[in-house]
Amino acid sequence: MDLLRRICGEITPGSQEHRARAREHIRQLTMPDWALGRLLDLAVDLAGMTRDLSLPVARKMVVLMAADHGIARQGVSPQSSEITRQMVLNFLRGGAGINAIAGVTGTGITVVDMGVDGDLSVPAAAGKLADCKIARGTADFSLGPAMTREQAVRSVESGMRIVQDLAPRTDVFATGEMGIGNTSPATAILTLLAGETDPGKFVGPGAGLPPEKLAFKAAVIRRGLEVNRPDPADALDVLAKVGGFEIGGLAGVILGAAACRKPVVIDGFISTSAALLAALMVPASEDYMILAHGSAEPGYGTMAGLLGKKPLLELGMRLGEGTGAALAMPLLDAASAVMNKMATFSSAGVSVKGIR
Amino acid sequence: MDLLRRICGEITPGSQEHRARAREHIRQLTMPDWALGRLLDLAVDLAGMTRDLSLPVARKMVVLMAADHGIARQGVSPQSSEITRQMVLNFLRGGAGINAIAGVTGTGITVVDMGVDGDLSVPAAAGKLADCKIARGTADFSLGPAMTREQAVRSVESGMRIVQDLAPRTDVFATGEMGIGNTSPATAILTLLAGETDPGKFVGPGAGLPPEKLAFKAAVIRRGLEVNRPDPADALDVLAKVGGFEIGGLAGVILGAAACRKPVVIDGFISTSAALLAALMVPASEDYMILAHGSAEPGYGTMAGLLGKKPLLELGMRLGEGTGAALAMPLLDAASAVMNKMATFSSAGVSVKGIR
Repeated sequence: MDLLRRICGEITPGSQEHRARAREHIRQLTMPDWALGRLLDLAVDLAGMTRDLSLPVARKMVVLMAADHGIARQGVSPQSSEITRQMVLNFLRGGAGINAIAGVTGTGITVVDMGVDGDLSVPAAAGKLADCKIARGTADFSLGPAMTREQAVRSVESGMRIVQDLAPRTDVFATGEMGIGNTSPATAILTLLAGETDPGKFVGPGAGLPPEKLAFKAAVIRRGLEVNRPDPADALDVLAKVGGFEIGGLAGVILGAAACRKPVVIDGFISTSAALLAALMVPASEDYMILAHGSAEPGYGTMAGLLGKKPLLELGMRLGEGTGAALAMPLLDAASAVMNKMATFSSAGVSVKGIR
Repeated sequence: MDLLRRICGEITPGSQEHRARAREHIRQLTMPDWALGRLLDLAVDLAGMTRDLSLPVARKMVVLMAADHGIARQGVSPQSSEITRQMVLNFLRGGAGINAIAGVTGTGITVVDMGVDGDLSVPAAAGKLADCKIARGTADFSLGPAMTREQAVRSVESGMRIVQDLAPRTDVFATGEMGIGNTSPATAILTLLAGETDPGKFVGPGAGLPPEKLAFKAAVIRRGLEVNRPDPADALDVLAKVGGFEIGGLAGVILGAAACRKPVVIDGFISTSAALLAALMVPASEDYMILAHGSAEPGYGTMAGLLGKKPLLELGMRLGEGTGAALAMPLLDAASAVMNKMATFSSAGVSVKGIR
């Protein structure tokens, strides 16, 4: 708990001064006023996070956390939990979607076992997988708490430690996850933090649940909320009762990145549920979050609204793994290049009138 | 006219067979069905264009065409036409938005003088600028035709020739433009091809025209349509009477790319007006077009609808130069990487049930 308290205490809001200086610089660049739209908003955000008008974003790392979920035994996912372990091995071998996309956007991948229900001490994983396993999957939260409060703290602190290790060689963090069944805890978290009682309005197909089973999934999640009665003002209580190990870990990654004033690109539905928990713990951490893409899960829009943010991409993706975050990275590179490479009106000898 | 006829005759629809084969391959990859959404639609589109399931997209080139517009003398732009020439020199020196963005997405830039109203035979441009200058700007289309039909043909053929030169070392083409006043011809073209008579519903601020002047801009464009009475079924008549040299050139680039079965990424409002003309000349050319981003100009949505397409990015950009097209390029890289790098369920030993 000491680490968690210390890291949370180190988080301060983004720098308004650097945001203002970035805006002033952008207005001198050879283009009509704010003609690159949200790319320039992103540049201002990055300046406020990094306190550096050169917007350092070259070294990118997605922290891909995997865990299993007791709730999956209720049949809320069309897939079996053994897929989580198989996909971790796929990540390590380089054959998954995140490997393909991170590869073309210059994004590194750190795969973390936060609580996979299976043996990952295999040769294929040796030296390539960070072992932060808290347990072999959470307990089934439709019957009782997913984990103890102590496990919740450990999961968040594990994410913070991962960031501490990576920070000296990382400019931008990103979140990714894998865990069969994890749209259910994410939906439970969203329901609570949106101040709702009915998960039915947020529930979605996840890895491909057929439409006729969505009401059943919502009922299982609703039962979990009723059995556990989490305190929606206490992020650790929410995480412990209806969360997941990878969700706690990602909340820790986000808080850790914010504490060292580095941008953190938030992937889709599950990652954003972790962002909601991070924002509840330390509201100023929101200043370091960049929403990568609008997930196809129906609850995503409400999540983004709770954070007061709009995702950069809208491509109907719903894979997770950090794929949306990795795909958004070139926009950060472009924002940085605009700040560093574009000429000003005076340096380029471009005469303007009324352009501002 | 021979070249134009020949290139148009070479354009055939995209390959349905390769689209089907791409879909079949994607369904074997280790992810829930179609979980990367529009990125997978893009992969299918690229397969249909290139007839190659490896989706060759490595070598990217934006053709950035510049020209001036007689209509600018009416005061439809807040900027003076001399900016067109100054910005061409800025492109050649590497200080513009397109240089910054193309630089981080591995996109080359070919700058073409299609009809800049100024002397570009200066040392700074020597060997770096393609000279296809048709005249020093178009005539003012609010008073009569912007150009002769012969000039319209020449502008389109110039774009085709540029593509012929670049094709052996280019996998993906993109369009970009610079020309003070060119939202006015683009709006005129859109009005005609949308079957409307009132440009007022499409007119926008371009490089920063204040809101109180939009009605005036619409009136000038309307007068141009009334004076010239272009035949909306004859793309060359539309181009000659209310178009621009860079717009004709870009229509030629698009048709040229389609003829050699290469994808062409269409930038914003002006570029998409050229795409409308290309589609009118050869409807099958649409199969090779990828809309990069939703321009902030109010008429853009109608343009995209006429092409039956949706842009990849929505970032409120309105700079032109090919910036949106260059920014979309990493999505093509990602689509290609997904096809080439991802493991299949069987190769990765991932067990699925009901995932399709």
